[in-house]
Amino acid sequence: MLDYPSLAALAAVLREGGFERAAAVLGVTPSAVSQRIRALEERVGATLVVRSQPPVPTEAGARLSAHMERVRLLEGELAADLPLLAGAEEGPATLRVAVTADSLGSWFLPAAARFSAATGTLLDLVLDGEDHTAARLRNGEVLAAVTADPAPVSGCRTRPLGALRYLATASPAFLARHFPQGVDAAALAAAPVLRFDRKDGLQARWVEETFGHPLAAPTHWVPSTQGFLDASLAGLGWAMNPWPLVATHLAAGRLAELVPGRPLDVPLHWQHARLGARLLEALTREVAAEARRSLVPPA
Amino acid sequence: MLDYPSLAALAAVLREGGFERAAAVLGVTPSAVSQRIRALEERVGATLVVRSQPPVPTEAGARLSAHMERVRLLEGELAADLPLLAGAEEGPATLRVAVTADSLGSWFLPAAARFSAATGTLLDLVLDGEDHTAARLRNGEVLAAVTADPAPVSGCRTRPLGALRYLATASPAFLARHFPQGVDAAALAAAPVLRFDRKDGLQARWVEETFGHPLAAPTHWVPSTQGFLDASLAGLGWAMNPWPLVATHLAAGRLAELVPGRPLDVPLHWQHARLGARLLEALTREVAAEARRSLVPPA
Repeated sequence: MLDYPSLAALAAVLREGGFERAAAVLGVTPSAVSQRIRALEERVGATLVVRSQPPVPTEAGARLSAHMERVRLLEGELAADLPLLAGAEEGPATLRVAVTADSLGSWFLPAAARFSAATGTLLDLVLDGEDHTAARLRNGEVLAAVTADPAPVSGCRTRPLGALRYLATASPAFLARHFPQGVDAAALAAAPVLRFDRKDGLQARWVEETFGHPLAAPTHWVPSTQGFLDASLAGLGWAMNPWPLVATHLAAGRLAELVPGRPLDVPLHWQHARLGARLLEALTREVAAEARRSLVPPA
Repeated sequence: MLDYPSLAALAAVLREGGFERAAAVLGVTPSAVSQRIRALEERVGATLVVRSQPPVPTEAGARLSAHMERVRLLEGELAADLPLLAGAEEGPATLRVAVTADSLGSWFLPAAARFSAATGTLLDLVLDGEDHTAARLRNGEVLAAVTADPAPVSGCRTRPLGALRYLATASPAFLARHFPQGVDAAALAAAPVLRFDRKDGLQARWVEETFGHPLAAPTHWVPSTQGFLDASLAGLGWAMNPWPLVATHLAAGRLAELVPGRPLDVPLHWQHARLGARLLEALTREVAAEARRSLVPPA
């Protein structure tokens, strides 16, 4: 059997971002935390934590820490059935979930809050970097993900959540300035557009699908969901914004659609580990319920 | 003299995130872009771009690309004085600025929009990773930064902007559930708190300064400024939220302060390259004006 007190020390150091904070949480001295991790490293025959500020896990360290978080999740469920077993010094389990930036900024959190209030589980939300989420699901580093990537991950269940609807939006002043004759190819080539980051192809896709030509326009880079909305409201550029964030601004006339009635729907998926864990099922129910309210139903 | 068409190809590949898009922007073929960059690499004697998807600059590539962006910024100013000089195929200059996540999500964008509307300059906003911003300012990769780090960077001017005011806030339902007897040490140790990431010590600092003891409490991790606000509104936990984002929610009773009248002010600084560039001065004026509206004046 693995040495669980040492694993708990490792997981706490990574979760808390330091040996001293981990020691405080575990109620032991920092040198005890150090010793436990060193013992684990000797047994495994590999460095588990790079001692930087904050400490960074090696691949082996991340794998062991993920295992510990999964075991604690299962212990959390056991404690619900057998309350006397619950070790008070351990505190509640933490569930790590990957979420797309736009979902985190527009619809996900009410589901997270209801789940947490009902179960007492803590959440460690990480942003879905499309490249890494599949790998993180596979090795158990995250136990579930809201992702735009439909490819099923082995060992995981996938269910469609519906689509996050994006609308091409800008401020009325921006539209009057850059599209006085309406939205066409020439005006689109000159009007500043927002992009979230180098991977964000939504604006270009909408132009391609709506007008049948590629988009090459002056670009502002704004790496924040709320920043996108604020930049649109302030007239910095036009952008594809999530419908849940712009609905009230459209109704109030603070934003307008470039071409009314031309949304772009991005299907989202919920992937979670096949752990048979009731906590994951409870979170799945809340996420699905919130998705029904805020997303466009799957086709 | 450096070979500027090749430098422009390099900068475009990195800015656009690909050889094909760079070619489209420059109005040449992708193979011409490739050839120019290879020629530059032979001259410099080092690889400048790792050919991945998207392309990633080496240290030398980043340095050269930053130089090109600075030259284009100066050209942009020249074109304002000598309009006939302006090369239409080049398009407007792009100014790269680092901004803290909370500033980007709460007060910065109206200043950016006014500056861009007045000058036609495009903005490439990057999130201020405290560790890297100083280095990025030093080598010219970003030309200005809103940062909480007051240490002056050599070759840059620093001016205080005032402080972003944070309030310890939670939903009324959360307060009733977790602090029925008021906010004290025992209740704070049990009530879930939000943290942005491992470096976010704001909540702990507020507890330390207000109650004189360290904070060790169940923690939800939510890496998004707007996510923090949404999680507070939904009752996931209490958190230090920027005043500009919570003011209307406090007035409407959707959020309340844990201890009224106990804000935490985080001083922000504006650092910008000493380039003597009028564009940077124009941006500085707009940022300072917006800071006067949204931040607490410097002591």
